[in-house]
Amino acid sequence: MNNLGNFLTLSTFGESHGIAYGGIITNFPAGIEINFEEIQHQLDRRKPGQSAIVTQRKESDTVQFLSGTFEGKSTGTPIGFVIYNENQKSKDYDHIKNNYRPSHADFTYDQKFGIRDHRGGGKSSARETINWVAAGALAKHILPKNVEISAYVSSVGEIFCEKPYQDLDFSKIDDNDVRCPDAETAEKMIAKIKEIKKEGNTIGGTITCVIKNLPVGIGEPIFLKLQAELGKAMMNINAAKGFEYGSGFCGAKMTGKEHNDLFNEDFTTKTNLSGGIQGGISNGMDIYFRVAFKPIATLLRPQESFDKNGNPIIVEGKGRHDPCVLPRAVPVVENLAAFVLADLFLMNQIRKV
Amino acid sequence: MNNLGNFLTLSTFGESHGIAYGGIITNFPAGIEINFEEIQHQLDRRKPGQSAIVTQRKESDTVQFLSGTFEGKSTGTPIGFVIYNENQKSKDYDHIKNNYRPSHADFTYDQKFGIRDHRGGGKSSARETINWVAAGALAKHILPKNVEISAYVSSVGEIFCEKPYQDLDFSKIDDNDVRCPDAETAEKMIAKIKEIKKEGNTIGGTITCVIKNLPVGIGEPIFLKLQAELGKAMMNINAAKGFEYGSGFCGAKMTGKEHNDLFNEDFTTKTNLSGGIQGGISNGMDIYFRVAFKPIATLLRPQESFDKNGNPIIVEGKGRHDPCVLPRAVPVVENLAAFVLADLFLMNQIRKV
Amino acid sequence: MNNLGNFLTLSTFGESHGIAYGGIITNFPAGIEINFEEIQHQLDRRKPGQSAIVTQRKESDTVQFLSGTFEGKSTGTPIGFVIYNENQKSKDYDHIKNNYRPSHADFTYDQKFGIRDHRGGGKSSARETINWVAAGALAKHILPKNVEISAYVSSVGEIFCEKPYQDLDFSKIDDNDVRCPDAETAEKMIAKIKEIKKEGNTIGGTITCVIKNLPVGIGEPIFLKLQAELGKAMMNINAAKGFEYGSGFCGAKMTGKEHNDLFNEDFTTKTNLSGGIQGGISNGMDIYFRVAFKPIATLLRPQESFDKNGNPIIVEGKGRHDPCVLPRAVPVVENLAAFVLADLFLMNQIRKV
Amino acid sequence: MNNLGNFLTLSTFGESHGIAYGGIITNFPAGIEINFEEIQHQLDRRKPGQSAIVTQRKESDTVQFLSGTFEGKSTGTPIGFVIYNENQKSKDYDHIKNNYRPSHADFTYDQKFGIRDHRGGGKSSARETINWVAAGALAKHILPKNVEISAYVSSVGEIFCEKPYQDLDFSKIDDNDVRCPDAETAEKMIAKIKEIKKEGNTIGGTITCVIKNLPVGIGEPIFLKLQAELGKAMMNINAAKGFEYGSGFCGAKMTGKEHNDLFNEDFTTKTNLSGGIQGGISNGMDIYFRVAFKPIATLLRPQESFDKNGNPIIVEGKGRHDPCVLPRAVPVVENLAAFVLADLFLMNQIRKV
Repeated sequence: MNNLGNFLTLSTFGESHGIAYGGIITNFPAGIEINFEEIQHQLDRRKPGQSAIVTQRKESDTVQFLSGTFEGKSTGTPIGFVIYNENQKSKDYDHIKNNYRPSHADFTYDQKFGIRDHRGGGKSSARETINWVAAGALAKHILPKNVEISAYVSSVGEIFCEKPYQDLDFSKIDDNDVRCPDAETAEKMIAKIKEIKKEGNTIGGTITCVIKNLPVGIGEPIFLKLQAELGKAMMNINAAKGFEYGSGFCGAKMTGKEHNDLFNEDFTTKTNLSGGIQGGISNGMDIYFRVAFKPIATLLRPQESFDKNGNPIIVEGKGRHDPCVLPRAVPVVENLAAFVLADLFLMNQIRKV
Repeated sequence: MNNLGNFLTLSTFGESHGIAYGGIITNFPAGIEINFEEIQHQLDRRKPGQSAIVTQRKESDTVQFLSGTFEGKSTGTPIGFVIYNENQKSKDYDHIKNNYRPSHADFTYDQKFGIRDHRGGGKSSARETINWVAAGALAKHILPKNVEISAYVSSVGEIFCEKPYQDLDFSKIDDNDVRCPDAETAEKMIAKIKEIKKEGNTIGGTITCVIKNLPVGIGEPIFLKLQAELGKAMMNINAAKGFEYGSGFCGAKMTGKEHNDLFNEDFTTKTNLSGGIQGGISNGMDIYFRVAFKPIATLLRPQESFDKNGNPIIVEGKGRHDPCVLPRAVPVVENLAAFVLADLFLMNQIRKV
Repeated sequence: MNNLGNFLTLSTFGESHGIAYGGIITNFPAGIEINFEEIQHQLDRRKPGQSAIVTQRKESDTVQFLSGTFEGKSTGTPIGFVIYNENQKSKDYDHIKNNYRPSHADFTYDQKFGIRDHRGGGKSSARETINWVAAGALAKHILPKNVEISAYVSSVGEIFCEKPYQDLDFSKIDDNDVRCPDAETAEKMIAKIKEIKKEGNTIGGTITCVIKNLPVGIGEPIFLKLQAELGKAMMNINAAKGFEYGSGFCGAKMTGKEHNDLFNEDFTTKTNLSGGIQGGISNGMDIYFRVAFKPIATLLRPQESFDKNGNPIIVEGKGRHDPCVLPRAVPVVENLAAFVLADLFLMNQIRKV
Repeated sequence: MNNLGNFLTLSTFGESHGIAYGGIITNFPAGIEINFEEIQHQLDRRKPGQSAIVTQRKESDTVQFLSGTFEGKSTGTPIGFVIYNENQKSKDYDHIKNNYRPSHADFTYDQKFGIRDHRGGGKSSARETINWVAAGALAKHILPKNVEISAYVSSVGEIFCEKPYQDLDFSKIDDNDVRCPDAETAEKMIAKIKEIKKEGNTIGGTITCVIKNLPVGIGEPIFLKLQAELGKAMMNINAAKGFEYGSGFCGAKMTGKEHNDLFNEDFTTKTNLSGGIQGGISNGMDIYFRVAFKPIATLLRPQESFDKNGNPIIVEGKGRHDPCVLPRAVPVVENLAAFVLADLFLMNQIRKV
């Protein structure tokens, strides 16, 4: 229920300025050799403080696995992990204890639960995604080795990476701070983020994700369609506002004659407006989707608002905040996708006798 | 797992040319008076044959409730329902038994399951959504009476309803065959669909849905965020290619200063780019989202393809098919949204002591 | 949640004197040839009216499968089934509409739901088990062909079948009306039930179930231990009061030295007090368990009770009731066990790489 | 799936000689003041080393709550906890790395997973129940304050506490090492365990649990019957071999006339053979059940067995083991019952409008 995944499941906990984050993964198959360094590497890609265009909160974000592996391999039993918070500065948030920041979850949490851990947004902080990166990087071990999942920043504000994904070299995604593999566009994006940051402002953008070499057959006919499971996962990311796959919203303008993907003799398709999925099930072609992210709501500049009693106040973010969520969201999208795929991959193993 | 909903759950069955569709709803609260006519009315809105721009398959789509109600009220026990197929024409599909239609699920089902009910697409048919309309129309009874869920066709191909939803009169949605409440735009859309139909072609479009008067507090912090549950449900609809809520993909171009919704003294907000949701939880403002639909893949004109053995063939749809999924998808979107909201509404009832 | 099974799931509906019973099974693998006659045969074993010692309600209990199979084989998509009630006699129950029968669920349903379908006990009727027999008989197709599940009546009141199960010929279970394979004991049991019936009384008893040839490895380490899943399923049967497996309550009197099962060289064990399960996982030896059933609460003789307003009344069962639940519970136990095993069998398919 | 609970859920991890145990509880309502000392007290009751008749492994078993509470109260978000192992002695288990101990899970784990953390039984160790005690003691906070859950040792081997539970003073349960509230019987039980221990042997027994003041209406009609959920939980405890409630196996010998519980005018019942449950739903009377535990399989004396290659060996437990599981299982039964009740209690909150 409050899990990610259906057969392979992830349960998580943690608040931004609490003691720790962590999670439990169940139904992970036995006998898989785990590359713990690769998992930590994925967390490092998401870590604060890694460049000038992200928050300077100091966290090592070191994940410790507490169970479920033995002598480097999975044992088939639940895998628990924990990531301790190190740089809690609860005092930084005293000023928002009774205040409602615009476009934050302060008001809705208070209304829903009648109580709120206000420190750094508590449970509503995007720091929760640290759990998803750890779990997704682990889940990726379940997929066939040749499955490649590559996400990159495809737009920042009005600056778009206009090359189709086929023309990009995904090995260059991490070559720059913004994680756009097209160097020229990346430079413009970085300049834009720096400019926005200087104003104490923030900016939105999109991430594109491409999945190559996924076997045919992944996804289930109803309620667990591959695109629905990917969409659900992505729409749970904190600032996500939209999801599209294949032709997406553009496809809604087309006719069937334009949109249908004709087959080749080997059952690959000549075009791929379908985005690698038919009837909710992978067809062996590339899967690609795009996620829209709004600008982060915390501004380092004054905004008018109200406290919980309805008194007018001025709120102003202090200290350590991201001007743009995109660069750090790239590993979140990738690893979250890995988790979704691993879950559906396992289910597909027992679909026919 | 293969259910819709988390606490309130829907399990379904049925194939396009099988004996029947149906479903079971669990955890529906006791003591609710059911308006069975309203449920049938929603099914009638989705029914084939209701106008010149939809498929002419003849089905009464009569739902029978088999359990879980007594003397007109819910009893708190599982509610089973069934909708018998009446107009099966299995023979119409003999020609596709061994053929793979472009952009259909024939190939992926065969690969995944090793067996396929080919008649009318079998399980992959959008006729499955009949179950969702029945269940959603029932689930709507759980929500407070003043909650309004209104979906309408906001674009067909390149023809957009350019008025913001606030300027539309939702009581007029069913006044025309295409279900766009703006009469002038509707006329253009209908003309376009007729033109496309004449060519044996199909066309895509978008549906916008607006939810008014939803109480504050609906949705859960992680993995069951309101937008993620809505997105998941919508992305399960057969031709859906994208989902966005609030500012959506446009919001990705904006800055925080532009995008943040400032509060009024009563905690409504001056703007609503957030789309009525903060931190995954409803904030009392209107919720609005948009779903992109691709053009239907079945064309009444020849297309090149292959049979399952890789021999080149010509496929051509015959008989009864929709040139545009939009008009009949409107009640699907509305009632599916109702189910999602009812599920999260119930969960929220026990979030605080 | 309100399902049986974890991966393979059964959702059910129906009330004793409603329109129909039925269910939906999800995640049933594709490509399995279904023996529909065998499923109906299991339902016939549970049917009312089959002998002088069971209720004379007239029901054909014919199951219709509505989806999920094609040309005799499973398609991997949800399997819906329905069993219409034919012999509803709602009027027979008018006298209990406002009355609470001793040791029935009339009072608890009214308190819990505030509404109650009183006809024949409504949802609380053991007629619900018809769904479990249909689903279990279907699920049995998933297990290896040589798995044998045999239940029999091992006691009625104080009359016990004293032979160990190893000395019984399970092919004789259906040879007599009470379903005890020991002819001599069966005779005594039948005589006892007839005597009890004449008094308008009822009597309890136990059913023993033996599972042979289950592969090693079925069951999960925590929360899905094989004995826990079997126990849960059995304790859901309407009159069940107890469950034990292997040495059971007797084992609680023993010492470790007496109780431990020493291995043979081939990892079979010399004794089998463990009942074929170690650590929640099958070890290849016979699994055996015993279920205790209380006497049915409906007596065909007057009992003092109260109506819902607290007025003293006399209640007396009328018409068609079982004097002893045991003979008809045998196929319920067997097929319910089959469902549990099939569910865990599927899960075990993906426990190691 | 691998969770305890249905709405309120517990996911757990940990191995006997791994780094830590822990768990995550979801859907715990907000605003409940948590008595952390009481939770630790329950863990202390289960702790090794607390008396002469239990294992002398040294563990403080200190639980740390890592999230989900704020200023002493629950926040409605997931509650994570961890209990670090302190006294791992992996070397103690080198001798069983390749050996299969009689009536242990060594063989079944190896077969199921192809890999096994052999140290102290790894995942198959009853040390997992530490998680259940922590989670159950927390869940108890959800129940009305006057609900009392009292478990006690009702037999050790052939020594039975012959007084009915109504004649026992539950405040005396912890007054002696064996946790039987009848001092005289307790003395005999303790003497028996000491005698058995001296022989390097072990002994089984039973625990009885009584629940007082549970509101009417707890439990669901099908698949979540109160007795089935309790039975499932209890049968997951490591050495449990049987479960019965109310009249239990004795009830199977009775007639309906003897067994039916006649009502009083206030809808209490004159007798309570039903054990406080009708139709799977609590009726306001005491709920009582009994769990059978086999003798622990680890003997401190030589036993013949085989290694994984089929070579004959002698196994002999060393060091720190319980001669009898009962005294430490008492808080496990109590707190596990609390979790089950809290889960069903929450679900019942939304059963009627």
